[in-house]
Amino acid sequence: GVLGSGDFARSLAVRLVCSGFKVVVGSRNPKRKASLFPAAAEVTFQAEAVKKADVIFVAIFREHYSTLCDLADVLVGKILVDVSNNTEINHHKESNAEYLASLFPACTVVKGFNVVSAWTLQSGARDGNKQVLICSNNQEAKRTVAEIAQVMGFTPVDMGCMSSACEIENIPLRLLPAWKIPIFLALGLFLCFFTYNLIRQVIHPYIREQKNKLYKIPIEVVNTTLPCVSYVMLSLVYLPGVLAACSQLYYGTKYRRFPDWLDQWLQHRKQIGLLSFFCAALHAVYSLCLPMRRSHRYLLIETAVKQAVEKKMTIWVEEEVWRMEIYISVGIIALGLLSLLAITSLPSIANSLNWREFSFIQ
Amino acid sequence: GVLGSGDFARSLAVRLVCSGFKVVVGSRNPKRKASLFPAAAEVTFQAEAVKKADVIFVAIFREHYSTLCDLADVLVGKILVDVSNNTEINHHKESNAEYLASLFPACTVVKGFNVVSAWTLQSGARDGNKQVLICSNNQEAKRTVAEIAQVMGFTPVDMGCMSSACEIENIPLRLLPAWKIPIFLALGLFLCFFTYNLIRQVIHPYIREQKNKLYKIPIEVVNTTLPCVSYVMLSLVYLPGVLAACSQLYYGTKYRRFPDWLDQWLQHRKQIGLLSFFCAALHAVYSLCLPMRRSHRYLLIETAVKQAVEKKMTIWVEEEVWRMEIYISVGIIALGLLSLLAITSLPSIANSLNWREFSFIQ
Amino acid sequence: GVLGSGDFARSLAVRLVCSGFKVVVGSRNPKRKASLFPAAAEVTFQAEAVKKADVIFVAIFREHYSTLCDLADVLVGKILVDVSNNTEINHHKESNAEYLASLFPACTVVKGFNVVSAWTLQSGARDGNKQVLICSNNQEAKRTVAEIAQVMGFTPVDMGCMSSACEIENIPLRLLPAWKIPIFLALGLFLCFFTYNLIRQVIHPYIREQKNKLYKIPIEVVNTTLPCVSYVMLSLVYLPGVLAACSQLYYGTKYRRFPDWLDQWLQHRKQIGLLSFFCAALHAVYSLCLPMRRSHRYLLIETAVKQAVEKKMTIWVEEEVWRMEIYISVGIIALGLLSLLAITSLPSIANSLNWREFSFIQ
Repeated sequence: GVLGSGDFARSLAVRLVCSGFKVVVGSRNPKRKASLFPAAAEVTFQAEAVKKADVIFVAIFREHYSTLCDLADVLVGKILVDVSNNTEINHHKESNAEYLASLFPACTVVKGFNVVSAWTLQSGARDGNKQVLICSNNQEAKRTVAEIAQVMGFTPVDMGCMSSACEIENIPLRLLPAWKIPIFLALGLFLCFFTYNLIRQVIHPYIREQKNKLYKIPIEVVNTTLPCVSYVMLSLVYLPGVLAACSQLYYGTKYRRFPDWLDQWLQHRKQIGLLSFFCAALHAVYSLCLPMRRSHRYLLIETAVKQAVEKKMTIWVEEEVWRMEIYISVGIIALGLLSLLAITSLPSIANSLNWREFSFIQ
Repeated sequence: GVLGSGDFARSLAVRLVCSGFKVVVGSRNPKRKASLFPAAAEVTFQAEAVKKADVIFVAIFREHYSTLCDLADVLVGKILVDVSNNTEINHHKESNAEYLASLFPACTVVKGFNVVSAWTLQSGARDGNKQVLICSNNQEAKRTVAEIAQVMGFTPVDMGCMSSACEIENIPLRLLPAWKIPIFLALGLFLCFFTYNLIRQVIHPYIREQKNKLYKIPIEVVNTTLPCVSYVMLSLVYLPGVLAACSQLYYGTKYRRFPDWLDQWLQHRKQIGLLSFFCAALHAVYSLCLPMRRSHRYLLIETAVKQAVEKKMTIWVEEEVWRMEIYISVGIIALGLLSLLAITSLPSIANSLNWREFSFIQ
Repeated sequence: GVLGSGDFARSLAVRLVCSGFKVVVGSRNPKRKASLFPAAAEVTFQAEAVKKADVIFVAIFREHYSTLCDLADVLVGKILVDVSNNTEINHHKESNAEYLASLFPACTVVKGFNVVSAWTLQSGARDGNKQVLICSNNQEAKRTVAEIAQVMGFTPVDMGCMSSACEIENIPLRLLPAWKIPIFLALGLFLCFFTYNLIRQVIHPYIREQKNKLYKIPIEVVNTTLPCVSYVMLSLVYLPGVLAACSQLYYGTKYRRFPDWLDQWLQHRKQIGLLSFFCAALHAVYSLCLPMRRSHRYLLIETAVKQAVEKKMTIWVEEEVWRMEIYISVGIIALGLLSLLAITSLPSIANSLNWREFSFIQ
């Protein structure tokens, strides 16, 4: 059974019919709404629909839950699936599912399907997340809804009892919260170092020697900026651990809570580390592109011509050669190690490592 | 209990014995077959084997299921595990497991272990897929079989009720179905662009100016072909979404089914996008290799010598320099963004993103 | 309920309180220990704590399990969660959980939470592994503990019945066991080939022609060593399969167990293959860095100057040009194919492939 006639109710009915379920839709105006639903779904009045169904998807807004109170008698003993979402994180004191359960104590309420979009429902779960998070205080009802999700082509994930409903309802509203601070940090660092390098490599030679080096901006200035950002970010990954250890030594106990800023910092280490790796990888690609540039070619030919005209046969500077060889080989090794760290942060790899192995690699 | 004496029955018996289970094998000719099974497994007549076991793996072909009808009496109340596979997708109307269940209504049938090969069974699950997909209409039986799979070192995955059996039986017959069309598309595009570039860069100069540029075929011609393929593929990822939107605007409703070709196209976007990324990444590697080539070195030296002999000190062309700097830096940024898209298509990353985050990144 | 007052007991109590559970801690000296626990947790004598709780976490060492025998009467019917770890793999004959179950036959014992560190418990599961492996002979008790783990923010993984306890207890002691032999193998091969290349490229020219080529050590010698290691490792991936096939042909049966060394070798193929890919990828990066070096630049200019002074206009060697073009293009294709192999070895990708697809790609 599906109560409601919005987009989500419609997509749900389509998907259920396609998956071979017998669907009955309850609407306050079944005649007008019938055309919106697939022909195989029966559209009728709410009370009738509820009578015919064992599992009822409540696809209406939280604000209208109370309008269902007239159906309280026929709803007794049914499984109600709350599929609703909020528009703001922690908008209401209690989750929608808990509110629904409090209105209908004689029903079994299951939270689920809210993390799935109407589009995914209709077109089937192909890309992205196929998981349907489910929670309920009733094991049997939870299992029934999980089976339905399975047949519909989704992967049900048991999230435990009803107290998780609030968490499940907040998930679709999240937009990469852990990445915001690290990304702004990286952008800020990039801007600072870019300005410094721009002044040093382009503006200063122009003012002092009237040399036009503007062509260096897109690649060379960016390429000297990236490793600076990467280094600072990498040090910001390991610094809070040192600060935490110092704090523990100072207070002589490890049972004291860290201040909030340190706690937040410790929690963002993974994201800061991955951005550091991203900058390092970009630096590697930029560096590898240096010899492809026209400017590199022209400078090389100009030097060769100058040398030939002046009949200077040798140009070899042993110190310069060694410096470059060591820079490059150390850079490759560092990038290799950072790649290893980045790979172990993939969820499926991290899940196959135990705590000791993870610490060893970190 | 294991019924059958083929490869799979044997591997199953070996693995069950190794995992500490007491195994009894039912065969029509126990004396001759006994030597094939491990010594710890008891090999006896089918009826006797069935009497001694609670869970019975039916490792015989669908065609021979009816030969088990003599055992109907002793099979009452037992759990039958259907491990069979078909040779063609949707070969029979009903799945093997459902057919078995219809023959023995007094038994509980569980579908499982068909996705595992005899080799994996015998040597233990080490590489590749460790999942054993299980479905049944009986929760208790499903749980029992899942526990057995767990002890054998596999990861049981609950696929819901018996109606999933058909899907589970089709899985081992699948060979990357979603990749076929995108791969042929990419190969076709590659051939077209390669021919065009070959004519333009090698055959045309040869005919017009008698210049032998054949050495350009393995790297330079391929390298100008790859980004063309990548661009066309990338546009083919975003085009069907636009067409779908136009179709919705034209018909004034989003409740109309898209035509089949558009639906198919929409479903292959992920694979087309990943192939586009693969071509772009290859293009990057090819480009980075350009300065490593002997031909690059020779052309550079020849230009330098020519300049030196003619005493032309400068060769700098500001426009060429800028064009190359901008090409390269835009190319790096584009590759960085495509990499991000490719990473989020990894199943374990996609599962940790909600729908809003996934759309944001896409 | 939590029995014990060590680090783990304390972290467990903190986390349970934070997750909204009512916690009672049982200690032999509640007055002295109370200050260690959060204020919301009730700290009392062991017998009293056990009486008040339904689920009891036994956070004490295996050696002290027998001290709980005084509580046998009050423990009847309770769920005991064994969270203990050992210091050595397979230290005791039976797992800690099975030992606990044998001491208290009237209780239901569940193994779990031992793979989680005290630190992860206290700070919440953010990085690395969030899985809590659980096993028990009692389904209901297992489900209760799984729900608790879920609410605490972990991902419970059902590992089946109590016989898995030994395996679960060994997990935290593991340190990448499958990687040890392949890594030492790769290091050994690297050393051999490095010595050979060092003699050939640096020491030999120095002795014979007094040429100082020491600058080649960090990059060029390493770069000629890496592909040798990669090739030998790659052949070691495919060799054992051939040996296994030969052994089967020789003995005329595929039902004969392989000798132990071959079995071990067959099991390490994935790790050897990934190390081969790692060496190949490093070789690619080193090669791409070659034209960035000062030495490359100097040698180029010197050749150009020499040519210009001698007025030789052409330096083109068709054979050298072709050799390099073909080397590079074949190298890129090989690296592309190896990357594909490496990607399919990611657990989340491997899980989405069936056995036929996995074999096809391999």
